[in-house]
Amino acid sequence: MTISMYSASVPVFQHVLRNLSHVLGKAAAHVEARKIDPVALTQSRLFPDMLPFTRQIIIACDAAKNGVARISGVEAPKFEDNEQTFAELQARIQKTLDYLGSVPAAKFEGTDDKEITVPIGRDKTRIMRGEDFLRFWAQANFYFHVTTAYALLRHNGVELGKADYLVGANAG
Amino acid sequence: MTISMYSASVPVFQHVLRNLSHVLGKAAAHVEARKIDPVALTQSRLFPDMLPFTRQIIIACDAAKNGVARISGVEAPKFEDNEQTFAELQARIQKTLDYLGSVPAAKFEGTDDKEITVPIGRDKTRIMRGEDFLRFWAQANFYFHVTTAYALLRHNGVELGKADYLVGANAG
Repeated sequence: MTISMYSASVPVFQHVLRNLSHVLGKAAAHVEARKIDPVALTQSRLFPDMLPFTRQIIIACDAAKNGVARISGVEAPKFEDNEQTFAELQARIQKTLDYLGSVPAAKFEGTDDKEITVPIGRDKTRIMRGEDFLRFWAQANFYFHVTTAYALLRHNGVELGKADYLVGANAG
Repeated sequence: MTISMYSASVPVFQHVLRNLSHVLGKAAAHVEARKIDPVALTQSRLFPDMLPFTRQIIIACDAAKNGVARISGVEAPKFEDNEQTFAELQARIQKTLDYLGSVPAAKFEGTDDKEITVPIGRDKTRIMRGEDFLRFWAQANFYFHVTTAYALLRHNGVELGKADYLVGANAG
């Protein structure tokens, strides 16, 4: 098998989102064991003008979902973006995985050079080649928010290691 | 052009490392303008048992360099890992970019299914397909350390936005 627009996108987002779900499970267990208010983690920020943990998860999910929708042309469901608890964030990840799993690999054929219009901020757009959109935009944005979520948990004392992020439940 | 093991690796590492260099430039300007000891940033950590900023940069560079070396089979230079200052970290990024730029795209042909032996920790190895190594290991590891470095700077008050990470000097 050779690398393709499908193999470089959907399985990567799925793999990392499953590991993110594993990380969230550890965070939820952490607050439960210590009788900590979960909001101390879910609303935590690394700096006052950065987004809180909940938004990092939501944006990571959307980078995957909207990235795949723009490349494949398969319409993605819209969500309300009102997740607050670990359980709600886990459900958001699961709904994103459900969508990713529903997109046929065939929809990615020939998308390497497809022109994709990407919204930039509120009122600008940028046209990118499909492959450039995937490698320089969707993936970079996705990893940014997944890693920031991990960093927030580590900064707040949740016992995690890089293996939880890299291999998820296989980290033991 | 269709996606390939080369197009999904070298140009991505180059793009993100150049943006990381831009981010480091802003961090260096920040400490200079405010007469802050640069060590306050370069030795900062998000939690006591996490690696400091300098190591995040070094490991990001090595994820790119060693990732490309394992896939392409083109031997990579070894560095001393003794960078301490922003200028030394910038030189590390540049040396990594020099290596990446020296590897011919032809060396990536047929590496999708190449068996790659990956060191795991100090005394274990794992064999992965070339594409799996790239998408599930080298890239994930690379983005993890680049984003953690960015998060450390934001946490310490350096004025950065996601555009600095996504588009670098083009962020204005």
